[in-house]
Amino acid sequence: MQNLNANNITQAVLDSLASTSDPRLKEIMSSLVRHLHDFAREVNLTEAEWFKGIEFLTACGHMTDDKRQEFILLSDVLGLSMLTVALNNDKPAGCTEATVFGPFHVESAPEYALGDNIANGAKGVPCHVSGTVRGLSGEPVAGAVLDVWQSDDEGLYDVQHPGIDHAQARGVLRADATGRFHFRSILAVPYQVPHDGPVGQMLEATGRHPWRPAHLHFMIQAPGYETLITHVFRDRSAYLDSDVVFGVRESLVCDWTEQPDGSYAMAFDFVLNPLPSAPKGAGAA
Amino acid sequence: MQNLNANNITQAVLDSLASTSDPRLKEIMSSLVRHLHDFAREVNLTEAEWFKGIEFLTACGHMTDDKRQEFILLSDVLGLSMLTVALNNDKPAGCTEATVFGPFHVESAPEYALGDNIANGAKGVPCHVSGTVRGLSGEPVAGAVLDVWQSDDEGLYDVQHPGIDHAQARGVLRADATGRFHFRSILAVPYQVPHDGPVGQMLEATGRHPWRPAHLHFMIQAPGYETLITHVFRDRSAYLDSDVVFGVRESLVCDWTEQPDGSYAMAFDFVLNPLPSAPKGAGAA
Repeated sequence: MQNLNANNITQAVLDSLASTSDPRLKEIMSSLVRHLHDFAREVNLTEAEWFKGIEFLTACGHMTDDKRQEFILLSDVLGLSMLTVALNNDKPAGCTEATVFGPFHVESAPEYALGDNIANGAKGVPCHVSGTVRGLSGEPVAGAVLDVWQSDDEGLYDVQHPGIDHAQARGVLRADATGRFHFRSILAVPYQVPHDGPVGQMLEATGRHPWRPAHLHFMIQAPGYETLITHVFRDRSAYLDSDVVFGVRESLVCDWTEQPDGSYAMAFDFVLNPLPSAPKGAGAA
Repeated sequence: MQNLNANNITQAVLDSLASTSDPRLKEIMSSLVRHLHDFAREVNLTEAEWFKGIEFLTACGHMTDDKRQEFILLSDVLGLSMLTVALNNDKPAGCTEATVFGPFHVESAPEYALGDNIANGAKGVPCHVSGTVRGLSGEPVAGAVLDVWQSDDEGLYDVQHPGIDHAQARGVLRADATGRFHFRSILAVPYQVPHDGPVGQMLEATGRHPWRPAHLHFMIQAPGYETLITHVFRDRSAYLDSDVVFGVRESLVCDWTEQPDGSYAMAFDFVLNPLPSAPKGAGAA
């Protein structure tokens, strides 16, 4: 392969992948190369624009550390994250819908007992959260593990505060034997995704705002059920119709009710998708 | 925009770009989003695969510093760099062809006089390099600036040697009044692109070798001419037909001749593409 031009180079790169042993990797890489080349040809990418792209990716890489994930943020604001969620979460009607994971989940958040306050010092208006975890047939999912995380009244997650090195407004809880859960936290408010980096510059250059509507993140896991990664959004929040990461589902929006004492309460019932069960007998299909 | 699914999310992201003030940026971003989404839909990207991609880009970013550019390397081995070169260098017949820039150019390399040895301590078999720089009509390009760089006999550029902090086997020279140049250096040998990082893992997983055929890099600049970024390849080098970055052009391969004393000599005549000239008079088209 010599003298490749803008038309035949794509096939040469595809040919170079011929010895890929993993067929799925070969499929993904081949599709990636085709679409990447089609993009460059379609816009007639200049060398200066190519180099801007290199610089952009480099800046994203240098911004990323154990507390900041600029590539997930990039994927989020380009709609790739929500597209991937949509491609992989075609759940039966009645199941709680999924939405984006986002860049702010932390592994091994502290465990709390039902009724505890997970705010752990995070500032905000108190909010009581409760609900149930059930399966698609209405059965309670006893002991379902709920991993919950949210931002504070400044719109920042704990990991975004330089001075804070312990978990705030995030925690792991277990539903009781009837699938019920409840805990205390703070009221979620709309916030801006981190926009002091290259992704923020991209949003500005494309005339986009960096806001997300108010929400609380949930990841719910239980044996026999598909893991659910989702948010509960706050009704009447600003930006429900222009979420910068395209994550809002009407079915995930609920009323967060102000109480006489000024605190809030939010209740949401989750429905998990059962995993396909193993054949029950020798003759089962 | 709520309740987006795998089919309508692309239009929602495109709509979000509506306020982009720079029309070229809007064109590029819109094409990028369409192709990125088409790729994900075509392969039915799983969430685990998406996360592998995030991890891969993060690793590329963390590998990149002022001496190592993993994103350029990635672009090179995916053929994107050479495609961009091809899209932007449709020169008239007779002009020297362009090829990839590569990740090893260094700004402000030392200046040398014609006849100097640019090896500056780099190890290798001595090699004398000479030639001319002319324009498309055969006119000599007096004072053309030649920026030259190459690897040593281990196949490493100076910036890849941890112990070396000065320029070796790279330099800037000026052609004389007749467009001629000559300098001493070392013999180029085939080498492996850096493959101890994520791009190396990708090459291995796709069954590809990391080798490039022997070559010497040139960037040639002169007022009134298009800048030429190219290599001269060594005839009969291994990997001329399987260059990992797809950069070989037959017209850039020449004989590097062994001399009686064991040194080598290589001569190459470059032809630059004149820039379109300004209208010559008031009535000119």
